[in-house]
Amino acid sequence: MTHQTSATASHADMANCIRFLAADAVQAAKSGHPGMPMGMADVATVLFTRFMKFDAADPTWPDRDRFVLSAGHGSMLIYALAYLTGMPGMEIEDLKNFRQVGAKTAGHPEYGHAPGIEVTTGPLGQGIATSVGMALGEHMAAARFGADLTDHYTYVIAGDGCLMEGISQEAISMAGHLKLSKLIVLWDDNSISIDGSTDLSTSDDQLARFEASGWEATRVDGHDPEAVAAAIAAAQKSDKPSLIACKTVIGWGAPTKQGSHSTHGAPLGDDEIGAMRGTLGWSHEPFALPEDALAAWRAAGARGAKARADWQARLDAAPADLRAAMTTALSGDLPEGWDTALNAHIAALIADKPKVATRVASQKALDALVPSVPAMIGGSADLTGSNNTKAAGMTPVKPGDFSGNYIHYGVREHGMAAAMNGLALHGEFIPYGGTFLVFADYCRPSIRLAALMGIRVIHVMTHDSIGLGEDGPTHQPVEHLASLRAMPNVHVFRPADAVETAECWALALQTKTGPSILALSRQGLPTLRAEGADAMPSAKGAYVLAEAEGGDRKVTLLATGSEVEIAMTAREALQAEGIPTAVVSMPCWELFAAQDQSYRDSVLGPGTVRVAVEAAGGMGWERWTGEAGAFVGMEGFGASGPAPALYQHFGITAEAVAAAAKARL
Amino acid sequence: MTHQTSATASHADMANCIRFLAADAVQAAKSGHPGMPMGMADVATVLFTRFMKFDAADPTWPDRDRFVLSAGHGSMLIYALAYLTGMPGMEIEDLKNFRQVGAKTAGHPEYGHAPGIEVTTGPLGQGIATSVGMALGEHMAAARFGADLTDHYTYVIAGDGCLMEGISQEAISMAGHLKLSKLIVLWDDNSISIDGSTDLSTSDDQLARFEASGWEATRVDGHDPEAVAAAIAAAQKSDKPSLIACKTVIGWGAPTKQGSHSTHGAPLGDDEIGAMRGTLGWSHEPFALPEDALAAWRAAGARGAKARADWQARLDAAPADLRAAMTTALSGDLPEGWDTALNAHIAALIADKPKVATRVASQKALDALVPSVPAMIGGSADLTGSNNTKAAGMTPVKPGDFSGNYIHYGVREHGMAAAMNGLALHGEFIPYGGTFLVFADYCRPSIRLAALMGIRVIHVMTHDSIGLGEDGPTHQPVEHLASLRAMPNVHVFRPADAVETAECWALALQTKTGPSILALSRQGLPTLRAEGADAMPSAKGAYVLAEAEGGDRKVTLLATGSEVEIAMTAREALQAEGIPTAVVSMPCWELFAAQDQSYRDSVLGPGTVRVAVEAAGGMGWERWTGEAGAFVGMEGFGASGPAPALYQHFGITAEAVAAAAKARL
Repeated sequence: MTHQTSATASHADMANCIRFLAADAVQAAKSGHPGMPMGMADVATVLFTRFMKFDAADPTWPDRDRFVLSAGHGSMLIYALAYLTGMPGMEIEDLKNFRQVGAKTAGHPEYGHAPGIEVTTGPLGQGIATSVGMALGEHMAAARFGADLTDHYTYVIAGDGCLMEGISQEAISMAGHLKLSKLIVLWDDNSISIDGSTDLSTSDDQLARFEASGWEATRVDGHDPEAVAAAIAAAQKSDKPSLIACKTVIGWGAPTKQGSHSTHGAPLGDDEIGAMRGTLGWSHEPFALPEDALAAWRAAGARGAKARADWQARLDAAPADLRAAMTTALSGDLPEGWDTALNAHIAALIADKPKVATRVASQKALDALVPSVPAMIGGSADLTGSNNTKAAGMTPVKPGDFSGNYIHYGVREHGMAAAMNGLALHGEFIPYGGTFLVFADYCRPSIRLAALMGIRVIHVMTHDSIGLGEDGPTHQPVEHLASLRAMPNVHVFRPADAVETAECWALALQTKTGPSILALSRQGLPTLRAEGADAMPSAKGAYVLAEAEGGDRKVTLLATGSEVEIAMTAREALQAEGIPTAVVSMPCWELFAAQDQSYRDSVLGPGTVRVAVEAAGGMGWERWTGEAGAFVGMEGFGASGPAPALYQHFGITAEAVAAAAKARL
Repeated sequence: MTHQTSATASHADMANCIRFLAADAVQAAKSGHPGMPMGMADVATVLFTRFMKFDAADPTWPDRDRFVLSAGHGSMLIYALAYLTGMPGMEIEDLKNFRQVGAKTAGHPEYGHAPGIEVTTGPLGQGIATSVGMALGEHMAAARFGADLTDHYTYVIAGDGCLMEGISQEAISMAGHLKLSKLIVLWDDNSISIDGSTDLSTSDDQLARFEASGWEATRVDGHDPEAVAAAIAAAQKSDKPSLIACKTVIGWGAPTKQGSHSTHGAPLGDDEIGAMRGTLGWSHEPFALPEDALAAWRAAGARGAKARADWQARLDAAPADLRAAMTTALSGDLPEGWDTALNAHIAALIADKPKVATRVASQKALDALVPSVPAMIGGSADLTGSNNTKAAGMTPVKPGDFSGNYIHYGVREHGMAAAMNGLALHGEFIPYGGTFLVFADYCRPSIRLAALMGIRVIHVMTHDSIGLGEDGPTHQPVEHLASLRAMPNVHVFRPADAVETAECWALALQTKTGPSILALSRQGLPTLRAEGADAMPSAKGAYVLAEAEGGDRKVTLLATGSEVEIAMTAREALQAEGIPTAVVSMPCWELFAAQDQSYRDSVLGPGTVRVAVEAAGGMGWERWTGEAGAFVGMEGFGASGPAPALYQHFGITAEAVAAAAKARL
């Protein structure tokens, strides 16, 4: 087999394989970004042939080094590497099919679409921030399962744009603080961005900036393989995360265009590529490669086979309980008995009927879950006491001590969300993290990537309406429920009481294919549910909490979260006037939309007067109320004041709900 | 009058006025953040009594120094200062009414609610980032109107949380690059955040970090008035922006709680405040102040009266054209004749019927507008050529040269949005800035503040759907139109052709009370409009672009942007089958929602079969289609491929629209 050849080829030829594959694929697609792969071809060749611990035959082997292409527009680099090293499922035809509908070789690298892609990238800064979570996950897995079984680096290629994005600061600050010594960032330091030279917009001394956050930082000629190799070797030995500024020429090799932003995001053109074949002495047709260079690449791809086999042997020889714990963690399955304590907790809630904020109920649910689900990693963006995210017994992760299971992310919502993605992608963990719902806006780009990748991360977003009171409109979400519900593949849960909160936690944990949001109240809410876990009605997304009495249902009141209580009070008033009224609790629109029509109709009561109440903007509610229905909620931003006064002020009251229903009867 | 007294009082007494007002108001409200105002009382006293150029009698005088409380939770600091210095409309009763419904003294400082508030703050990092736009605006105004008429500092108080937020990096990087030498940030360096000591989550060397971005940085004892004063004086002289780390004790003065995070976000309690009265020798009742200290404060508030009068005299003496230009700019009104060239452009479009992308059409509209509206300041987050934001003749702002009218914001969408807010707030400018629509997520918190403040900023968001093609789902907005439409007080424009694009630009410029978003296509679109500017149908938000023919309307097709062309093709097919079909173009939902019911009904045709088509998620469309209507659009994320192939792949076609209509007839 090719990849067993102990082939040799020149560094230049191997790097030029990347360059021509990138230039030719972009040219064939008439679309793409050749400049970055051409500029970083030397660095990538050094990294993948001399340092990266990976086995192309099994690109998802758990203890592999992670490679993150934060500058995701240079996607042809990652596709070329996958093909060159011989990863299964990446053939030359895939490269020829770059950027076509259905191709593995999408415009930007998409997690799960092709081998070797650890994370979907493209939105700048996300890769470097996600890699912080991966590097943290590596340390945490090592602390749990032993350095024998987890001991790898996380390498990142980042561009100027990544370092300009604010999220990069949150990421490097977090990585430096926690001393994530096995994180190595290779900065494609080419001084070019889309508008032209980077000095149009930035003058940062990046090395000094990273050093200020506790990183090792150095600069090398990115076209000098030995200098790059020496820098990586030094970085591996550091007890800090490392930045290696690789001074490169964008589009290196393109005779008239290299060094210019014209190579960044457009095909080079047949003439330029032809001339490049001349100057680089490359006699091969597009997508054809010199045999010795390809063989050398395939050999590089097989370098890690022994490391993988050794790792497997160590795992097989590990104590049974350790092996089982690690295997369960890596499977992503919830361990046997994970919900026993939770179910007992739900039963107790139904018996005791406490009045508690759902954020507090969430903490109680966590108290019941975390001991049974060791994969759960908590955290908060500096709102631990407000988000109620720290379950009993959780201990913080500290610089250099990764034995804990709670992360103080700091006031870094965006970096937290990206790090959570990285933790989930590393494989052993179910991260959840807290902030206020209004600050979902700060983390939205990372939540979106989680949704696109289909990974399990859980956002605990408390203070979910004007019900937070005095902090006022800057802190009161109005449009956030709608804007999160608008995002594909996200489950937005807004439980009405402690029982629903516990159920929603169970549902979020079981949602392995995408992120979940738990929108939770600051204010206390009564327990409304009389039935418990066996019924688990939250699983259907919406259900009849209280059916109409005394005749056929005439009115259906739809509500979520803290407004279900208001709907229940309105129902009492309507029933007292002889109007048979049902209350529907809708903790999760997405799950409800997935039910069949007959169930949905049985809940919504299409022939009845429908009134929805939610302390938020009304966008989207017409779907459930119909055109003739009504919505009681917010029409604009909130205000500062005590919560009960605000509900009155904005007319979100049982009286208003009942009046809206009667006006339509 | 009190404020004319040349009163003297000790620094300590004056600072303690702030401390007790903050502690007592928070205690009265049983809600709020006393720790920050108490810790920064010394710094604020030095700043406002010795440095700030302001006249309390006229808090919005154009050449005042700007003061931004980036750590907005410490709102009692700004309210105390407004009261102490004697700003009109801030009385002791307002302080007693802190955080109550309808009070000027909201939980966080809200622009327009009370005097002395330059920008709404609370979401951390926003203040410091907005201040960059203000400081930039100062330099740009000076370049335009002369340093005689604009010559002031912008002071910021920022907390640890502000500096942890990623947006702060975008802001300081931009400020350092542009050499905004009159921006002075006073960092409340108290080493405390909500979770506890900042060393739970951060180890950054902030001084080194700022220096790496081209700032002057120093550290002083924040409780030593002379040290603070010396640092501010030095910062004023620097040719760089300056960071002054003020080492403070949070909650300074609280005998048992100072230095602890327990003072951050909760009332101190009557006992603690009582004890503080003892230790600080403060014999006054809550909200009562020593006469000499208040008199000294009032004198400080009147210090700037002469500067203001001198400025007014200089303005009055300025050449008439300069005076008129500055006065017009400050009024926010569009200059006479602003739309003459635009109207001629629209007439030419209707005659020529070009097929162009609406992003290109936007550039043509800008070419017609910018020469007539000098207040317009363009820019892009490193996507100038893609966003088509640089109108003919625009010149870039450069470090130290502020004569231009175009800003290369770099890959800093969030910082751009905040800086645009700052430019708008400074008063003379109408900023617009470009990025891809998908990256609206990166700037959302700043867009939200613009909406909450009701200020005019215009976001040019191109590549507005799967129509961008090969870049794939990371770059294809799906949920962004819905999530922006969900935000109160935002106008989301999605024009269908070059004519609508020009009209939407005119409408955005005329929307002085909130931000506008222009969602623009990458791909070419035909000119569909036969009528021009006099009709200006876009002003109603939606209108019948093509009425049904051959009988009463049976079908209404609703569309926006690039899908209006698809609706027109579907209409042709339906009309050919004898089905009278109208097409409604809906460039702005918010403007349409504001029309009266009879107009809305005349457009929507409630009795007809309604089908909406938009290359985005469907959330919210039920409002316009009714429950029985249909929506043709996206159900999940996009994909990488050429745009026409993607429209086919996702079934967003005229055939699908016609079929959906016929299925409902």
